[in-house]
This record gives sequence, structure tokens and C-alpha cells, in this order.
Amino acid sequence: MKAVLVINAGSSSLKFALFECDPELAEHPVVSGQIDGIGAKPELSAKTANGARFRGAVPIGGSQGEQHRAALDHLFAWLDTQEAGLEIIAAGHRIVHGGERYSAPVRLDEAVLRELDAFVPLAPLHQPHNLRGVRAVATLMPTIPQVGCFDTAFHRSQKPLAQAFALPRAISAEGVKRYGFHGLSYDFVARQLPEVIGERAHGAVVIAHLGNGASMCALRGGRSVASTMGFTAVEGLMMGTRTGSLDPGVLLYLMEQKGMDAKALTNLLYKESGLLGVSGISQDMRTLLASDAPAAREAVDLFCYRIARELGSLAAAAEGLDALVFTGGIGEHAAPVREQVARLSGWLGIEIDPAANAAHATRIDAPGSRVAVAVVPTNEEGMIARYTVELLNGAH
Amino acid sequence: MKAVLVINAGSSSLKFALFECDPELAEHPVVSGQIDGIGAKPELSAKTANGARFRGAVPIGGSQGEQHRAALDHLFAWLDTQEAGLEIIAAGHRIVHGGERYSAPVRLDEAVLRELDAFVPLAPLHQPHNLRGVRAVATLMPTIPQVGCFDTAFHRSQKPLAQAFALPRAISAEGVKRYGFHGLSYDFVARQLPEVIGERAHGAVVIAHLGNGASMCALRGGRSVASTMGFTAVEGLMMGTRTGSLDPGVLLYLMEQKGMDAKALTNLLYKESGLLGVSGISQDMRTLLASDAPAAREAVDLFCYRIARELGSLAAAAEGLDALVFTGGIGEHAAPVREQVARLSGWLGIEIDPAANAAHATRIDAPGSRVAVAVVPTNEEGMIARYTVELLNGAH
Repeated sequence: MKAVLVINAGSSSLKFALFECDPELAEHPVVSGQIDGIGAKPELSAKTANGARFRGAVPIGGSQGEQHRAALDHLFAWLDTQEAGLEIIAAGHRIVHGGERYSAPVRLDEAVLRELDAFVPLAPLHQPHNLRGVRAVATLMPTIPQVGCFDTAFHRSQKPLAQAFALPRAISAEGVKRYGFHGLSYDFVARQLPEVIGERAHGAVVIAHLGNGASMCALRGGRSVASTMGFTAVEGLMMGTRTGSLDPGVLLYLMEQKGMDAKALTNLLYKESGLLGVSGISQDMRTLLASDAPAAREAVDLFCYRIARELGSLAAAAEGLDALVFTGGIGEHAAPVREQVARLSGWLGIEIDPAANAAHATRIDAPGSRVAVAVVPTNEEGMIARYTVELLNGAH
Repeated sequence: MKAVLVINAGSSSLKFALFECDPELAEHPVVSGQIDGIGAKPELSAKTANGARFRGAVPIGGSQGEQHRAALDHLFAWLDTQEAGLEIIAAGHRIVHGGERYSAPVRLDEAVLRELDAFVPLAPLHQPHNLRGVRAVATLMPTIPQVGCFDTAFHRSQKPLAQAFALPRAISAEGVKRYGFHGLSYDFVARQLPEVIGERAHGAVVIAHLGNGASMCALRGGRSVASTMGFTAVEGLMMGTRTGSLDPGVLLYLMEQKGMDAKALTNLLYKESGLLGVSGISQDMRTLLASDAPAAREAVDLFCYRIARELGSLAAAAEGLDALVFTGGIGEHAAPVREQVARLSGWLGIEIDPAANAAHATRIDAPGSRVAVAVVPTNEEGMIARYTVELLNGAH
């Protein structure tokens, strides 16, 4: 079986998905999973397309750096045992940051990797691990082509104003600008839209990618015109444990009045805030929606209110609104969140059909709604596989 | 002549305005001005209602703290020489922060002042000086009533969601929330609106207070429902030298990659950014509009773009838009800024009349515009005088 391997390498985990490509690329992987606990006690968990699940220790030692490569080596051997005659024809990697340069996927070689190394300061928690995964594959399977797919690339179509902060020119010039993220998800969903909402797919569209990380993107003609995530993945919407947008004066206050340093602030803004911080109960939307606690309700209400505010701001960026599309774990499954956002956004011409919404239908707008409202499952791994095949076929 | 004295005491300056009140309160001051250079070489500058101007040294010495009181003493003596038979019947103070407690002006006594002292950490650059001014007047003129008028009070009508950050509950509970500022200006303008836009004044209105400091406020039924400035006066719109809203991740990056501390960041965000930082030319909108430099144009474009984005977000807070009102130095005088904001906001039903806009008319919407668009000069000092009289007459 010929297949494309999709890899998302993190600091202590390595996610993978194997897509058959013989000759057409499959939409869903034949097997996917992850190796967790790299650097400590690594474990492989996976599931196959027919529902079988696998879980087992990964018997490797060495430093964290060495374990990344050893984990991949173990993965390749394991995949061989799962798929007789497996031939991996290419590897597609999720790479968080493509800087100002990359507005499309790119064939990865050592020269490109050195360029991507330069973006490590822009995403120190993810970029080095993403690149380490690429180099490990290059060592283990030197003959297969590798493709880098960037979370930032989809947003490079934004005009400079939408990417700018009102900072001194010297700081902006060194790359402190709004990159936007979740681009793999937005591109995947945007490509489904003509089927789902017809001509409106080419108009003013806002996609809400609501997961544990959450952001929204305004599109015109299928291209990104603005996004809520900016220089980092903490700006914009309230998230599972992240604040989203926050008066920068709050950080100055916490530094001056409480002596918090960058590490403490990073922990506060990324790990202790959002749904978890406001509710004091959980970062999981399902838990909060099932809870009777007033604080759980407050957290959900704030989450929805801020989506509605950003929707107004993004409609301004797109100069109108023809369609609103929900995706991501919360966007695809939390009907009460979609309902509340729609209710707050009636002024934009949004009206949803309660039954369709409760059923998670693809189209959930009411017959009289001026704005189309849709639920479209995202598939970031599938997007990476498709980018990889497109690039190797010369489509980019 | 009976009169109300309005005072705005800063760290090194003391602004004042004297409003005749015999028996009706005048709309504009008979004399107004400021003492600058307190703590160094103080100088009094003033102008009278009939256009006469005065400028002279203030012959006082002592520490900065002593100079505040001495400057006020000098001011009282000077006012006596200007207005024969002057009787100051009350003093109204601009006080930046009324915390969560004060949603209206308040008669100031030592107990209230001690409460207001507690808000110094929330506004360390302004609150202590505002309160020092009150205490100096109490020493010099112990018999006249004093009234505190807060920049934050007008926004206390906002629902909790609009005031919330997605921070852990413990941090929010100690007062880290969105207070909003420029409330004296918003209330003054809001009170003019029924005359200017009729019934729409009670609908969904956004007021843009565009000066060197700039913010916007959404109103429903004449009450604030949301504002762009939050915990501090740096959030929201791009300003003369302030960034406005900024991905908090940018601060973490500047701390970690450049070793910037709270003082350096405060200086960057408050003093070196905004129109000045983006243009590299000037913080003054007049200078930028007169410039041919592309960087000047970029700064103006970003200023307008961000107003248009916030307008969408505030329309979401008000769940619609019936009127847009410009005020403040830029809002009242920069026709090209109003024109560009209106152009970006056509999707909301805004259309302006170019001739009326160029003439700075009170109503500048085109005949077919669904949204009323107005220019209403603000008068924060007049608002303080009116609050003071209203409170002493028992209206609050």
C-alpha cells in the first residue's frame, strides 16, 4: 500500500496519521495515533479506520532528543507490522510557523530547515520540536520527500493593515506582526464551503474554529482577510485555558504589583485562564455545559459573548457577512454554544434552526436567515496529506 | 460672581476652568487654563471667554508635593484678580478611577478620599495626583463642597460580561476588570444626542472619542454597554503614542527575547507606539494628514482600520447600530479620518455626505444613510461643572 505519513511533532508527543494514496488520496487515515511521554516513558496509542485500537509501551531510552528519533523509528517498524507491503511515499509535517515568507506548503530540505530555524523565537514552544521531527525522518528515511505545512501560511493573504500592530516600525520590521494560526483548518473548511453554502463561499465568510485552542478567521473570495489569533496563539478568543485578548496594561499591573515574571505570566495566560480560570471547574466545554454551577455558566457565557464581539469585528474586516461556519471540537459538537452565539448575533441577520442545530446538521440556518450558518468538521491531518500530494504533483 | 471651579490635577500640571453659576450654570468657562511645570518651574497660562490670554511664572518653591498646594493657592489669588467679587461655591474634580464602587459623582470628604486612595494601584500615574488636588483645596478652602467625577463611572452600567477578562476568578475578584474610561466625555455627548439625532439617541449608538487618547463606547438607551478601553487606558484603539490592543504574547516575547522590564514595556506601549511609532514622524494627526510620506499614510490608515474593526465589535455589543458619533480633537476636526472610517463601515449602513463632513457639520450622514452620523464637540470640564451642581442640588 502506498501512503502519505502525516506528522505533528511536539515537545513530548508525536502525532501521526497514515493516508492511503493509491492512486487517489484517501480522505481519512487508515491508521492514526500518537506517541506520548517522549523523554519519560513513551507509549504508543493508535486506532485504525475500522475501529481497532492499539496501546503499548515504546521500548526506547536515551535523551529527549534521541527519543524523538527512536520513537519515529519504532513507529515506522510498527506501521510495517500493521500494513503489509506499506510504502511511505512522502511525509507531510505540521509546522507551526512559516514566518512572513511562507504562504504555501514547501518541500523541505536542509536549506529550508535552516530558514525555519530562524522562526524558533516566534514560536519557541512548538517550532523546534516540529523541525526536530522533520530531521529525524530525514535521517531514518532519507529518500522520501518531506513537505512542511504551516499554520500561518493561509493568513499571508491578509493585507498589511490586518497584520499590523501599532508598534514602532523597528519592532514591526523584525517580525512582530499578526501571523494568525489554525490555517490548515481554515483552508480545509474553506475548500468544503462551495458544496455546503454555494456562491456564498466566495463572499464574506467567518469560520469559527472552536476547540481547546480557538480562533476565528474572516474570508473574502476564500482567502483570509483577518484572524483573531495574532503574533501568538494566545490572542483573540477565550480558550480552554488561555485568556485570549487581554488589555496589555493587565500584564504591566501584574508585573509591577505582583512581581510576576515572563514565566509566571506565560503560565497564567496560557494554562490557568480561559474556561478553566473563569469557571474554576474545568477547561472542557462538555463538563461546563453539563454543570449547574453559576461559575460554569459564566464561563460559557463569556466564551460565547467574546465570539459574538469578534464576529462583529471580523465582519468589519470582511465588510459584511454572508456565512458563519463552525468547526473544531466545540464548534462541531456544542449546540448550546452555537445557539448562544447565533442569538447574540441576530443583528447581523443570523437565525438558526433549533432542530437542525441540535442535530448538528451541516446547514443550521433557519429558512429566513439572511446569513448562511453551517457546521463543517475540520480535518487538519487530511489537509496536510492533501497539501503534500498537491505539492509533489506540482500543483503549488 | 458665583462660580464652580473645575480641577484636573496631574503629576506636574493642574488644569482648571471656572464656570459662572448665577443662578444657571454656564456652558463654557469664563476663564480656563493650566499651571504646568509643577515641581520644576511652574507657569500659569490661561484664556478668558472673550479671548484674552495670560501667561506668567508662578513664584513658588518647595517640594513637588508642596508646590501642588502652593500652585493652587496662587491660582485662587490670581482668579480673584481676574473676577471682581468672585465667590467659588464648589470645586469639581476629575478623578480617573472610581473602582467598581462609584457609578456616579460623589461628594468628597476624608472618608471617601481614603476609599479612593485604595484605587491608586489601578491608576498609579493619575489617581494620586487627582487626590492630592482635592486635599490641597480642602486645606486652602475648607468650607467649599468638593465633588469627585470619575472617568470610569459612566461604564458601570455595563453587564459583567462586558467588563470581564478571561482570567482566573481570584484575579478578577481583586479588581482586574474592564473599567472603561473617557466616561465624562461620553456622558456629555450622550446628553446632547436627543437634540442631534432624535429617537435614535435611545437606540444602539457608538461614540468615538478620538483625541491623543482615543476610545469608543457602545450605548443602548443612553447607557454604556461596552467600551474599548479596559483595565487601563492603553487597551482598544491605536492612539497618539499608545499601541491600543496588543496580543499579550508580544509582551511575553519582548520580555523573554529582549529582556524588557515593566518600565521599558510601559514606555514602549504608552509613549513610543501608536501614530508616532507607526509613522516615525509625529503623534499629531494634523501633521500626518498633511504629510506625503507613505509611513504617515500607513499610520492614518491603521488608525482608521482599527476604528472600523472596533465599530463592528461594539455594534455586536449593542446588537445593532443606529448612530455613530465622532467627538474629541480628531473626531471633531479630522474630516479625512471620519471619511475613511465611514467608507470602511458602509457594510453597517453608514454613508456620509462629503460636503457636510468637510464642513464639520453636526449631522454628516448622507440622506440615504441607514445609520445617523454626527459630530458633537465634547466638553469634559463642562460635564464636571454640571455634575457638581447637580450633586449639590440633590439630583444624584
